[in-house]
Amino acid sequence: MTDLLLLPGDGIGPEVTAQVRRVVTALAPDLKVEERLFGGASYDAHGTPLTDEALTTAKASRAVLMGAVGGPQWAGVPRDKRPEAGLLALRGGMEVFANLRPALCFQPLADASSLKREVVEGLDFMIVRELTGGIYFGSPRFIEDLPGGGKRAVDTQVYTTAEIERVARVAFELARGRRNKVTSAEKSNVMDSGLLWRQVVTDLHARDYADVELEHILADNAAMQIVKNPKQFDVMVTDNLFGDILSDISAQLTGSLGMLPSAALGVAGKPGLYEPIHGSAPDIAGQGLANPLAAILSFEMALRWSLDRTDLADKLFAAVNKALEDGARTRDLGGALTTVQMGDAVLTAL
Amino acid sequence: MTDLLLLPGDGIGPEVTAQVRRVVTALAPDLKVEERLFGGASYDAHGTPLTDEALTTAKASRAVLMGAVGGPQWAGVPRDKRPEAGLLALRGGMEVFANLRPALCFQPLADASSLKREVVEGLDFMIVRELTGGIYFGSPRFIEDLPGGGKRAVDTQVYTTAEIERVARVAFELARGRRNKVTSAEKSNVMDSGLLWRQVVTDLHARDYADVELEHILADNAAMQIVKNPKQFDVMVTDNLFGDILSDISAQLTGSLGMLPSAALGVAGKPGLYEPIHGSAPDIAGQGLANPLAAILSFEMALRWSLDRTDLADKLFAAVNKALEDGARTRDLGGALTTVQMGDAVLTAL
Ligand SMILES: CC(C)[C@H](C(=O)O)[C@@H](O)C(=O)O
Ligand SMILES: CC(C)[C@H](C(=O)O)[C@@H](O)C(=O)O
Repeated sequence: MTDLLLLPGDGIGPEVTAQVRRVVTALAPDLKVEERLFGGASYDAHGTPLTDEALTTAKASRAVLMGAVGGPQWAGVPRDKRPEAGLLALRGGMEVFANLRPALCFQPLADASSLKREVVEGLDFMIVRELTGGIYFGSPRFIEDLPGGGKRAVDTQVYTTAEIERVARVAFELARGRRNKVTSAEKSNVMDSGLLWRQVVTDLHARDYADVELEHILADNAAMQIVKNPKQFDVMVTDNLFGDILSDISAQLTGSLGMLPSAALGVAGKPGLYEPIHGSAPDIAGQGLANPLAAILSFEMALRWSLDRTDLADKLFAAVNKALEDGARTRDLGGALTTVQMGDAVLTAL
Repeated sequence: MTDLLLLPGDGIGPEVTAQVRRVVTALAPDLKVEERLFGGASYDAHGTPLTDEALTTAKASRAVLMGAVGGPQWAGVPRDKRPEAGLLALRGGMEVFANLRPALCFQPLADASSLKREVVEGLDFMIVRELTGGIYFGSPRFIEDLPGGGKRAVDTQVYTTAEIERVARVAFELARGRRNKVTSAEKSNVMDSGLLWRQVVTDLHARDYADVELEHILADNAAMQIVKNPKQFDVMVTDNLFGDILSDISAQLTGSLGMLPSAALGVAGKPGLYEPIHGSAPDIAGQGLANPLAAILSFEMALRWSLDRTDLADKLFAAVNKALEDGARTRDLGGALTTVQMGDAVLTAL
């Protein structure tokens, strides 16, 4: 059985994933690692962003780590063959419904943010985004011609009790190991899916998690509060669309997107999908400028959540912090290190 | 014909609207002003958050100014009778499809933000949010019981070429009077409505606004960029749902929500709807603590966009700035003035 399937993907994906490979070799040489094309790279080679073989391999692995997908060269490709479609198909196929997106402030970087130091210093907050339902997956979805001219586009947001409950459960469980507070964000004032979301979370809380503090917030207000005072939050659970936006704001709080990993988990025992929050950054791809820390920290999450090696995860996390304390900085952090040199810094600290 | 219809609404709405009345009397005593119940207050009196008579009066006025709606006491009211339903019905009924939400940094308040001073100082950016379409209005929408137990909730996002074009036109026209740049935000990578949105904006730009700089951005990235470097934007146009969230983030940048007005416009010659961006703030309602400046500046926008009195609008804007420069601060701005005292400060400056 493959322990770790690497899907380097497009843009800076292969560069940052290469540094993960070096870390794996140094830290956990016993892991069985494989690699497949994914996204635009897979489309160019196989005519599809995710081959059946790659999906089957992913589902049979213990953890999957992807780099990033997409780029302007695939803008003209039919919608269902685009790199992003491959990513949705991978998430859906692996049934990784709970996306854990930490917003962490690394102490040595507390000044790198556009927010005031006192607002972000010590920040440690986790967004749990529902990842395999909602408007990115609902049908019907289409663009049609209107009789009088012009077009009409439709997307459908769908959520069931079961989908909401399983992701809320992940949030409550996580909170128990943290500061014991869950904030659930939706637009129950104007959306039916938001109303169901609030009811299901409320019921589950009363039934199984009454020991955890639960607070409901409207998604627009959540966005404001994240900018105003993010330290009020511990775990925030929300749907796919709101989660996409709220987790990106949260990621931005800490100043560098190049630092932040994410984990997407399914039911216990199934493989998790790990990916940096950053995109494929076509503008700097191939130049050795990308920060590999988000990818390396995604591997750290994989060690923790899928590979049962918390000891190694702790070691890796400490090494990344040490490298930062020692002044290692890629360009996005205001430094001059290349991707490989940042990899070196982490390996040295290890 | 009524010049200005006031809809004080709920919570702090009546308090802040009362200060608008004082400003109207001082600045434009010739305006014919009327007032109606709205939101929860209307529900309590008439069993509906927006009576037909109030809507008819609104449509027959030159401008409508509302305070705020909603509050916990109406949480149990059936969905279609809730204060928020009245607001959607008012927006829909008045056909005010273009919501102008300025994010402005008032110089005397540049330090009040959670963002660093240099990131927000001098900020002047406008979000144009589509306001009468999208997922808040699309059908079908329902919650149904599933055969095996549990429920399923559906909301529908719908946009037509005509709806997108008319709001994009407002954005391009506005940009021409500003820094000549429009940023259009959607999720064309995963939503069909986003794909149509991008096409329609691109076509309209090529056809009628090639002199304006146009940039497309994914909504999640837009949220990040607003936090990272908001001054890169001039006018941002986006749909109802993304606009709700992006405009709330932008409002938060400048430190006090209590400062920010908004305008909702329909076709030329029809009345505009003006409202503060803040909510009804039930926690401080009735205590004289609310900041009336957002409501007063909403009247400033009404003078500018519906009442053809740019001269008075300029005068009022200057008076608000002067009051702030002279140190007038309500509690949300770190001061101790009451709602009425802040009204006094503006009147003195006038
Ligand atoms: C690439 C895109 C489909 C994806 C999403 O919207 O889910 C990305 O923005 C993310 O947040 O992982
Ligand atoms: C009160 C609510 C219906 C409304 C909305 O979501 O449109 C509010 O959040 C706003 O932004 O004006």
